[in-house]
Amino acid sequence: MSFSYVSHLYCPKCERTYDVDQIHQLCECGSPLLVAYDLELMRQEVKREALAEREPSLWRYHELLPVKHPEHIVSLGEGMTPLVRMPRLGRNIGIDSLYMKDEGVIPTGTFKARGAAVGISKAKELGVKQLAMPTNGNAGAAWSLYAARAGIQATVVMPVEAPELTRKECAIAGAELYFVNGLISDAGQIVAKAIREYGWYDASTLKEPYRIEGKKTMGLEIAEQFSWQLPDVILYPTGGGVGLIGIYKAIKELQALGWVDGRMPRLVAVQAEHCAPIVKAWKEKKRESEFWPNAHTVAFGINVPKALGDFLVLEAVYETDGCAIAVNDEAILAEQRTAAELEGAFICPEGAAAFAAAQKLRESGWIRDGETVVVLNTGTGLKYADTVDVHPPVLEPGDMLPKEN
Amino acid sequence: MSFSYVSHLYCPKCERTYDVDQIHQLCECGSPLLVAYDLELMRQEVKREALAEREPSLWRYHELLPVKHPEHIVSLGEGMTPLVRMPRLGRNIGIDSLYMKDEGVIPTGTFKARGAAVGISKAKELGVKQLAMPTNGNAGAAWSLYAARAGIQATVVMPVEAPELTRKECAIAGAELYFVNGLISDAGQIVAKAIREYGWYDASTLKEPYRIEGKKTMGLEIAEQFSWQLPDVILYPTGGGVGLIGIYKAIKELQALGWVDGRMPRLVAVQAEHCAPIVKAWKEKKRESEFWPNAHTVAFGINVPKALGDFLVLEAVYETDGCAIAVNDEAILAEQRTAAELEGAFICPEGAAAFAAAQKLRESGWIRDGETVVVLNTGTGLKYADTVDVHPPVLEPGDMLPKEN
Repeated sequence: MSFSYVSHLYCPKCERTYDVDQIHQLCECGSPLLVAYDLELMRQEVKREALAEREPSLWRYHELLPVKHPEHIVSLGEGMTPLVRMPRLGRNIGIDSLYMKDEGVIPTGTFKARGAAVGISKAKELGVKQLAMPTNGNAGAAWSLYAARAGIQATVVMPVEAPELTRKECAIAGAELYFVNGLISDAGQIVAKAIREYGWYDASTLKEPYRIEGKKTMGLEIAEQFSWQLPDVILYPTGGGVGLIGIYKAIKELQALGWVDGRMPRLVAVQAEHCAPIVKAWKEKKRESEFWPNAHTVAFGINVPKALGDFLVLEAVYETDGCAIAVNDEAILAEQRTAAELEGAFICPEGAAAFAAAQKLRESGWIRDGETVVVLNTGTGLKYADTVDVHPPVLEPGDMLPKEN
Repeated sequence: MSFSYVSHLYCPKCERTYDVDQIHQLCECGSPLLVAYDLELMRQEVKREALAEREPSLWRYHELLPVKHPEHIVSLGEGMTPLVRMPRLGRNIGIDSLYMKDEGVIPTGTFKARGAAVGISKAKELGVKQLAMPTNGNAGAAWSLYAARAGIQATVVMPVEAPELTRKECAIAGAELYFVNGLISDAGQIVAKAIREYGWYDASTLKEPYRIEGKKTMGLEIAEQFSWQLPDVILYPTGGGVGLIGIYKAIKELQALGWVDGRMPRLVAVQAEHCAPIVKAWKEKKRESEFWPNAHTVAFGINVPKALGDFLVLEAVYETDGCAIAVNDEAILAEQRTAAELEGAFICPEGAAAFAAAQKLRESGWIRDGETVVVLNTGTGLKYADTVDVHPPVLEPGDMLPKEN
């Protein structure tokens, strides 16, 4: 029985392999690297029943995570987020069996905590002392906080336009924070230059292989929370798409272990109408996306014009008979409000995009009668409160409230 | 085996009893009411081992909660928040065994979700259709969202100065939201008048008996997370003090059930220097507090000059050989930063107050060598980001990062 069954790193493009005990970033061919496990041995040695009494964090799946020694784990108790039934919203859109996987209920308030927890833990195991990354906000916040906990120095560069709350998280964690008068791509170039010059660890999305493993745990949890009976459809708001890649990888690993029954859920990549490179590629039956010019959407987290892992996202969609679909900003904001009014869930715009997509896919018949549907809400609405306007009446002390409103 | 072992309501002041199947607010004598359970029967019928495989939410303790029928539960998956070891902060202040119970990792981002989940569920069971409450922000936000999920109409009145994020939560949930040009006491008078006039359900703090039961689950979870071996000291940032009352009630119930070993933890009520009515009463060995004039602190949630349940808070402190202690705003803000820098935890100012108090009590020797100490962080720092200032350097695209900072 091993704590981790991790075996090596491999390139999904050129099939080169790498040692998991050394620092590696991208493959020599330029592709992101993926983590492999000895699933055959694990299948013999570990039964899923072993999970039942473990603590409700993502570390309950330590055999399927890359950290070899428990003392390297850097955790704030992240994971095992609620899987919440959405009966009233479901009735509204004709899906009886509608669930929200609520990634707002996690340290730092977004699913980025999963990637940071596992990424930082493995970085600590590899002896990293200094890392750098560009960010649109939430990933930088999560990595700054987990790096602080690990005693690793983080340097973060973000666009001046990035959400204000996320800057504050980086700053209070003691990260070296810089703004750039530009986009995340400008931040990325500044970071790349410093990494070449100073030899820092590159914690940019998919340039280190371990955040996927953290995000993979969303898929592991969904499977366990459904008692290992997989749902029919999973909708995921897709920017960089690491979560979708992770969920797909998780379920394939669970199938290899023989832990899940039934067929692979159909995975849906949800994007915003004015930033939909994956949707365009899918419609054209392509294997990679093209850069989307002038990208913009209220759902800041999915405003990614070209993802490094686009080919992996598209593979997950094709291989599961899934699809890719875009929704507009009006639908996103309306859905955010409806989720709060009907279900008491203050979701983020990205999550709202995925609910809006579920509605469209039900209307078109792509989601069929009686199917079980899971929507990923990737963060709490608290981090994006600019989307909500409030102008209540102002009373004076002693005033009387009206009875009917 | 019952789903709930609730038996009746009782007054801790005059000992009158009330029916738990009817709507009751305060006792005729003006005191808050508490919920009683048939603990003797439960002791015979329920073993704590039954909990092991239940879902990680506060509803795992349904036998000790007042909702009689599971179909009335209104839940967003709240509870079983992380109990996080704080080794570096602990070393800093000389407490090796220092833990944070992190109530930021819960729907709505504060511990108010516990009171709202149980309070709203019981209100639904009692057939409530319309409720009203005054709030300083977070409670109103939580009750608005859970009321929305239950299909109950909520009317909320808050000071114009209340934190902006909490207004947005009320508004997006569809609550009838009003500001008042004044304090929470002015909001309370406006609500009281409407309740008298219209017969609405009064969801004001301690004017309904069930939020205590929700907050009690913090104590139940701490006990279970420590494998039923109680810690030595629990520090709680104390405004209204409902959480402290709840934790005390929880541990007494667990003792009556025979589920916990060891002595009652010493409970510490932590307040801010410029709003410390409980501390003053405790120093004067009084059983009730006096109204604190001109109260102010950066920790908005504990800015309560006179709590309705003050006598219950003081009882909990006296009966457990605990204490009450005040810290100043400078210490609070410094501690908030230290927790982020050393542990990656972005805590709220109220939680920071409790860590600062732990440091003071360790320095004075009140917390002794080798004791296990739990600090309640009552919410995520994300909801109070005004306390963090950020002024990073602004780079231009193509700039080089400095190597040393």
